[in-house]
Amino acid sequence: MDQTLSDERIAFLRSDYEQGFIRYCGFRADKITPGRFTSRVKIDDHHRQQDGFIHAGVMATMADHTAGYSAFTVVDDTFQILSIEFKINFLKPAFGAGLACESTVIRKGRQILVAESEVYDLRDKERVLAAKATVTLMAVPKETLVQQSK
Amino acid sequence: MDQTLSDERIAFLRSDYEQGFIRYCGFRADKITPGRFTSRVKIDDHHRQQDGFIHAGVMATMADHTAGYSAFTVVDDTFQILSIEFKINFLKPAFGAGLACESTVIRKGRQILVAESEVYDLRDKERVLAAKATVTLMAVPKETLVQQSK
Amino acid sequence: MDQTLSDERIAFLRSDYEQGFIRYCGFRADKITPGRFTSRVKIDDHHRQQDGFIHAGVMATMADHTAGYSAFTVVDDTFQILSIEFKINFLKPAFGAGLACESTVIRKGRQILVAESEVYDLRDKERVLAAKATVTLMAVPKETLVQQSK
Amino acid sequence: MDQTLSDERIAFLRSDYEQGFIRYCGFRADKITPGRFTSRVKIDDHHRQQDGFIHAGVMATMADHTAGYSAFTVVDDTFQILSIEFKINFLKPAFGAGLACESTVIRKGRQILVAESEVYDLRDKERVLAAKATVTLMAVPKETLVQQSK
Repeated sequence: MDQTLSDERIAFLRSDYEQGFIRYCGFRADKITPGRFTSRVKIDDHHRQQDGFIHAGVMATMADHTAGYSAFTVVDDTFQILSIEFKINFLKPAFGAGLACESTVIRKGRQILVAESEVYDLRDKERVLAAKATVTLMAVPKETLVQQSK
Repeated sequence: MDQTLSDERIAFLRSDYEQGFIRYCGFRADKITPGRFTSRVKIDDHHRQQDGFIHAGVMATMADHTAGYSAFTVVDDTFQILSIEFKINFLKPAFGAGLACESTVIRKGRQILVAESEVYDLRDKERVLAAKATVTLMAVPKETLVQQSK
Repeated sequence: MDQTLSDERIAFLRSDYEQGFIRYCGFRADKITPGRFTSRVKIDDHHRQQDGFIHAGVMATMADHTAGYSAFTVVDDTFQILSIEFKINFLKPAFGAGLACESTVIRKGRQILVAESEVYDLRDKERVLAAKATVTLMAVPKETLVQQSK
Repeated sequence: MDQTLSDERIAFLRSDYEQGFIRYCGFRADKITPGRFTSRVKIDDHHRQQDGFIHAGVMATMADHTAGYSAFTVVDDTFQILSIEFKINFLKPAFGAGLACESTVIRKGRQILVAESEVYDLRDKERVLAAKATVTLMAVPKETLVQQSK
């Protein structure tokens, strides 16, 4: 991606990332560069299942949301990003003290963008790829979004 | 599905459904029959994005978790269910006061099960299909699960 | 879908369906109604794997192509349909003398359409759901397609 | 992957790859190493759509089949590999004289394996990533496969 990001844009995306359900889940934006967005979360009991494993929904939400923000890094600030669909494979059980998510844009179309998200389980002495997702996104001019059409 | 469910099994699944991250999200089990599991959630501000729409991660978590419990209704109680992967399409924006999820097993293999989840947006006067997911699940004997292999 | 289809449109879609790789695969259009397209194929040895089962790629190609034509039934004839992505689950092995595919539009957006395809294995005495796919499609005005942008 | 491959195993996989529908499609095995399998095809008119683009089904079949053989490189020769499901995103239109596919195992479980396939469009002066797939596979002992259960 040849685009650059202003400090203002980075600050906006960082703060925009952490609202609503994402704030409730405790996800935090981490590194933001053109075409790439990373995030992290400290795991609490309320992120787990009854058996102690981190819930698949936590990883899926993180993969989707972070992918969306990786798309924000390559579009003009007049665009909103919507998730059209995603697919996620759970590769290893996650049970560590935190998760890190790394999302990368692999297709930057004018309207359709595709990003991949890797979710890492942060265990005591290692960082294990726990899930991988492919996310299809759409860039929509903000003024048309009020009509909720895509 | 020719299997029947005892009242004890239904009570167990209902209570088992609502723990950890799922309790934190406020999802509740609803109707439970062989091969089918439904759930619902009353939407709060913390389920939404900054723009007021219900977050895709809420729908994805509900679709995955409810699909897993639809699989629980067709396996023996000595089995645990794991999500191998899922794919979800977001069909309409969701902004209502609640969501309902209906999950149905479409493949009941000895080890590999597949379920579909439909997530409905409960608006004032209508119920709109907001998302649809396909979830691939694995039935694992509980005693082998401690080894975390699938 | 409230749209109707002229006889000319149906004849055009039927003949348009059966070209290039699809003709090479022997797929034939079957019933065409608004929002729904079905197809079929007589299975030859060249559709099978070494073990006699029908190749997953045959089912995937049929599911994708027929889904695309179900989308054609709900857009104006000035639009071309492109596949953005699809996901397919293989539910049962297919080994019969033919396959039938039924595709239905489940989201008709102005630009983004979603269709589901069910692929049935035509065995001696039964018709078995062998695979199910979800296909995300894009409607693009024909005049812009020459620029190959989506 | 720490496994090594004997020359006999490589020769077997190369020849096993090219049968039935795959031979009909003209796909050829290319490089075979532990955890990785590549393939290629020279494009003919019968691989294309009416508009000259290579059909999505060609890319999907190649992505699925090559992923399956990448899984064969990491399992014992007493196992057969089955596709449980796959998802493919079409990133760029493909219209070149050939395709190359590179498949890599990203999860090597005892039963469940996951591979990624990248399909490249071989154009005059460049090699463009045209499609990317994630494929979930199952390793099944050959002697149980006759029962067609997974």
